[in-house]
Amino acid sequence: MSSSSNYNVQHAPVGAFASFTLGSFDRRGGFASQVGRPGNSNLYIGYRDGDGMLCLLPYFESAVGPEVPFGVTLVRDTSMRRVFGEQDIHRELGWASDTIRAGKLTLAIFSPFGPIPDPRTAAPAEVARRSCPALIARLELDNTGGTEPIKGLFALDASSLRDLESTTDGRLAGVAHARQWGFAALPEPGVRAFQAFAPENAFDGSADRLFRLGKTGGLVVEVPAGEKRELWVALGFHDAGAITTGIEARYGYTRHFKKLEDVLAYALEHREALVREAAQRDEELSRSALTRDQKWLLAQATHGYFGSTEWLDTALDDASPPAPLWVVNEGEYEMMNTFDLTIDHLFFELRYAAWAVRDVLDLYVDRYSYRDKVKRPGAPGELLPGGVAFTHDMGVGNHFSPAGVSSYERPDLDASCFSHMTYEQLTNWICCAGVYVARTGDKAFLERHKALFPELLESLLRRDAPEPGARTGVMALDSSRCGTGAEITTYDSLDHSLGRARGNLYLAGKTWASYVILAHLLERSGDARRAADSRAASQKSARAIAAGFDEQLGYIPALLDGSGSKSAIVPAIEGLLYPHVMGLLDGNAAEGEHGELIRVLRRHLNAVLKPGLCLFPEGGWKLSSSSDNSWASKIALCQHVARAILRVDLPDPDRHEEAHVRWQIEGSGYWAYSDQMQRGVPVGSRYYPRGVTAILWLDEAPAGQRSSSR
Amino acid sequence: MSSSSNYNVQHAPVGAFASFTLGSFDRRGGFASQVGRPGNSNLYIGYRDGDGMLCLLPYFESAVGPEVPFGVTLVRDTSMRRVFGEQDIHRELGWASDTIRAGKLTLAIFSPFGPIPDPRTAAPAEVARRSCPALIARLELDNTGGTEPIKGLFALDASSLRDLESTTDGRLAGVAHARQWGFAALPEPGVRAFQAFAPENAFDGSADRLFRLGKTGGLVVEVPAGEKRELWVALGFHDAGAITTGIEARYGYTRHFKKLEDVLAYALEHREALVREAAQRDEELSRSALTRDQKWLLAQATHGYFGSTEWLDTALDDASPPAPLWVVNEGEYEMMNTFDLTIDHLFFELRYAAWAVRDVLDLYVDRYSYRDKVKRPGAPGELLPGGVAFTHDMGVGNHFSPAGVSSYERPDLDASCFSHMTYEQLTNWICCAGVYVARTGDKAFLERHKALFPELLESLLRRDAPEPGARTGVMALDSSRCGTGAEITTYDSLDHSLGRARGNLYLAGKTWASYVILAHLLERSGDARRAADSRAASQKSARAIAAGFDEQLGYIPALLDGSGSKSAIVPAIEGLLYPHVMGLLDGNAAEGEHGELIRVLRRHLNAVLKPGLCLFPEGGWKLSSSSDNSWASKIALCQHVARAILRVDLPDPDRHEEAHVRWQIEGSGYWAYSDQMQRGVPVGSRYYPRGVTAILWLDEAPAGQRSSSR
Repeated sequence: MSSSSNYNVQHAPVGAFASFTLGSFDRRGGFASQVGRPGNSNLYIGYRDGDGMLCLLPYFESAVGPEVPFGVTLVRDTSMRRVFGEQDIHRELGWASDTIRAGKLTLAIFSPFGPIPDPRTAAPAEVARRSCPALIARLELDNTGGTEPIKGLFALDASSLRDLESTTDGRLAGVAHARQWGFAALPEPGVRAFQAFAPENAFDGSADRLFRLGKTGGLVVEVPAGEKRELWVALGFHDAGAITTGIEARYGYTRHFKKLEDVLAYALEHREALVREAAQRDEELSRSALTRDQKWLLAQATHGYFGSTEWLDTALDDASPPAPLWVVNEGEYEMMNTFDLTIDHLFFELRYAAWAVRDVLDLYVDRYSYRDKVKRPGAPGELLPGGVAFTHDMGVGNHFSPAGVSSYERPDLDASCFSHMTYEQLTNWICCAGVYVARTGDKAFLERHKALFPELLESLLRRDAPEPGARTGVMALDSSRCGTGAEITTYDSLDHSLGRARGNLYLAGKTWASYVILAHLLERSGDARRAADSRAASQKSARAIAAGFDEQLGYIPALLDGSGSKSAIVPAIEGLLYPHVMGLLDGNAAEGEHGELIRVLRRHLNAVLKPGLCLFPEGGWKLSSSSDNSWASKIALCQHVARAILRVDLPDPDRHEEAHVRWQIEGSGYWAYSDQMQRGVPVGSRYYPRGVTAILWLDEAPAGQRSSSR
Repeated sequence: MSSSSNYNVQHAPVGAFASFTLGSFDRRGGFASQVGRPGNSNLYIGYRDGDGMLCLLPYFESAVGPEVPFGVTLVRDTSMRRVFGEQDIHRELGWASDTIRAGKLTLAIFSPFGPIPDPRTAAPAEVARRSCPALIARLELDNTGGTEPIKGLFALDASSLRDLESTTDGRLAGVAHARQWGFAALPEPGVRAFQAFAPENAFDGSADRLFRLGKTGGLVVEVPAGEKRELWVALGFHDAGAITTGIEARYGYTRHFKKLEDVLAYALEHREALVREAAQRDEELSRSALTRDQKWLLAQATHGYFGSTEWLDTALDDASPPAPLWVVNEGEYEMMNTFDLTIDHLFFELRYAAWAVRDVLDLYVDRYSYRDKVKRPGAPGELLPGGVAFTHDMGVGNHFSPAGVSSYERPDLDASCFSHMTYEQLTNWICCAGVYVARTGDKAFLERHKALFPELLESLLRRDAPEPGARTGVMALDSSRCGTGAEITTYDSLDHSLGRARGNLYLAGKTWASYVILAHLLERSGDARRAADSRAASQKSARAIAAGFDEQLGYIPALLDGSGSKSAIVPAIEGLLYPHVMGLLDGNAAEGEHGELIRVLRRHLNAVLKPGLCLFPEGGWKLSSSSDNSWASKIALCQHVARAILRVDLPDPDRHEEAHVRWQIEGSGYWAYSDQMQRGVPVGSRYYPRGVTAILWLDEAPAGQRSSSR
């Protein structure tokens, strides 16, 4: 595993679209909310040693001094700064914690998470606890070997900086940026807040300690010689009032916390419980059978996921009962509940907030579904009956787009970025709904959408061919919404091997899965006839995939319609996941009803997972042999399918996972978790939530207990 | 007058701390609120001509392209852009309008202002009208000579961009940034909003016109060949909820406008009345006796003033009656109601919002006054009785500082920037209160502060000398709040000639004024004995100033205590203003009770207003002969004193005013109105409200009707 500690982690409370991002050397970071990028503060965290040196973690841009008004030349002597480097810093990332050691300091930041209650039914106190938009940090200073007192520093710079003691009658010591975010400690002896032009001023006399024009501020803690001391700091956020448009909503936490000061006081008061829960998560991951690299990837991904979450409430006044609305923003892109991410967040969310999955699926039906026509390639002007489908997303930048419209999809684009993902989102709803029902047994959901299931089946079939007899089990017609263009998949900026929807092997896998799942759902809702139709269609899909196997190539080429692409793609296997987690595949799947499909995909995967095809020379998986674009989240998912369903013995897994960690640390670094990687460097999808597909790894048997077939 | 049109104007509604700033070539600008700097948008305003060329005003950074997500390479052909330059643009700045002509377009932006009602007593509809945080723009396109249709464009780029039609059921066409600001037109035929990656995309087919991922958006209007067309655009702001801390307050307008869409719809609906009022202001200034340069300076200053205003309400729920709180931010510094600016805004505010002056003076008494001790220079440890005084400001960055504390003042600074301004703020309260009472006749105010007047007198006297017999009429003791330091004046970053408070000639003038005014106020409140004391003290001040006249130098040197500075300073005359506007000086002041003082100051001014002393070689006034630092607002004020009270025939006034305009256009430019100028270039106090001292010019008799004495 990469031993570098030079990378950002997006420390985030649950559901506040807010992060305290820290860790990249010589870069700014810190607090930011309602924006898909790291904060913009220089962070000054360290201590002044007995010799007067200010020892700081390297989380600031040293080249840029603080802004000083009035044209005054501020003589700031930085010669007394000692900045810790790679060799000084030891860092350990837990599932819900991040511990950084350097010199005499240990900084731990806790971002506890766990079951997220449905505010409609849960006790308000429980909702308050989980939604409190705060993190807890602990700055520990070890002066046991020291002969002089040292002073710890936790500070940053920001505009509209203000003190917190004057707004809390001295109950909190700390600083804040306007009403939006801030950090505070309890005002114990030896702990004080300061505000000044530069961090060095923190050590001025106390008469001068709150210079409100200063854009640098924070906390100072005194540690006597020979002693060890902890400073507990709450890091909180507060975005009040309606913050979205299109659908108006506020943060659910505003029902429980009226202002930033409330958030900070609550977090400090409950810090023991918060840290205990973080420790539980850490322990859980630590005890799992995952390798060290896998643990790190899941931990880093989890931090990114929560940083993108919005736990909203469409009831704008406290008198109305809670009306929650769960949103996951698409990282730096800020698109809301992007459906082709929802399906990837599914497994993580079912673990912690199944009600949120249900709500998002309901909202897709109620507001973000549409009915289209379809068209054959090469038959301009001809419009055939289509069916129900779903939009790519629900809006962007806290703006819910109008009903039936995504922020992303545009007409007249020939299978290139920003075209429609009609078919893929159709399969996504079916797969999500199937897994949701299987995991929760939610009968009300089944009942509510009973009438939709036949529509979904019909919509899938019509996108294959208008004439039942001509259907092959593979998507062949594009939505009329494409205009003169053609549909794409979630791999939107990849070449046609994964980017084009029509005849695509990846999508064929999800088509098969959708038919299998729909058969199950139709059967459960008592529609045996259509269930049989769906099962028959799934068999066609499976056969089409198997028939695509090219003995000469040794694998199934990416496009099944013979339109030319010979690319080898890993996501051929993605679709297997959904019936599998629903328990619809047999224990020994390769021998069961879907045995042929599983066997052919196992052959396929074994063939393509080779350097020159779907492995990068440097290690790491390559989703398509014809593109250097790879999506880290999808690799994690496909790894799980390979191990848990295909039971393939992956070649050199440690070396590959090491490469995937390197992509995140050396490639992404500043952007915390990124998804879309070009030879290990993110070219998009930065600061991204999707990596929580790695949660699937926890469901795998430890490596030694796996039976493999190669 | 400088003929350049390359400068920003801070177009601002009344009291929203919000501006739409536009005019600097090749720079970003546009909307910004709650921040003391121009916006950060590229503005794309222009039209697509028949030949396909996109003709744009130069209000964007042409070097920087729009941000396009997904690593997609956007081929944006900018070879079809024609950007207007200095030679193409004709600009006319009115008091409440700004008209820019280039090619076939005329853009006018209206920022109407007028009497600001007291929300406690005024009709809500009147308050709503005046507080509506919106501007009106008119884009006129003249295609009368054209043979092909042209398309007008009013667009910009911004994060969290969203359309407005989906949140208004199509009643508005436009775009917004989150819930905070936006612009819209009525959806007439030929008018449509768009959102895209680049302004060129505005002319794509209408099916593609709202691409919500695009960070560029705006309005397009079609103008047929041979026709002329106007597009009316409302530019609005909305900052909801409590926005301040320390004292919690929201914007008063939030009582009347629940969201941005309400603001924009209201402004469009009332556009005729809004434009009519702007035209009234324009007409008023245009008809005044001011020179062209003076008109421009007052107009530019007025825009800056309103951009810094906050018309708040401390009653956070609509059920409570309005509890207004008026704040003027200190431009880029964002300090609130800085007292040494309040006194300069006084004359402007008395014209439009006398109740706000009263409220600010009351708040200074209630929350931002303090009682200190005083100390003699060179007598460390000795603390003598002081008295009542006032803080420098009420806070910074929307954070009200605790009672009795400013954000600016620090201890232990020896008459340098950030030291205390105790004495100056004491004279400021007295002078403001005197002028306020004289102008309004507010008996309740007099009654309310009756007990304060003797305290103010005592506080002034004790800062002269502890022993009555030793008093000279000039400030000689520093506040104990200075610690080891010494007090300064509003000229904080100037040298001791204007920066040091003790023995300062400038402050001596305001001391004299304060005693004269206090005598008047004490008399009116029935305290004849103390009124006489105050009158006697004023005579001492006058004598001290007159006695300071140095026949060898030919003027009064800046420091009256003989501590060395031989600098010549203009603001020696500042203090004359306050008794004058109160009517306390005789009609022919030079012959009246204060005749000696006036005559000596006239001699002084005539002597110092010379190149090498208080005139820059390039033209323009130099407030101190020993510093290149000059404050434009104070020059305007002193010019008025020179003409209206001293009746001095100013040397070459046109050339000087031309220089002052040049300071703003060529020096400040991007920062709209700036105050603190170093040889014509702002070194601080940018984007500043204080220039409205120029309102005093309107009270002067036209040049021809002035009687002068030299």
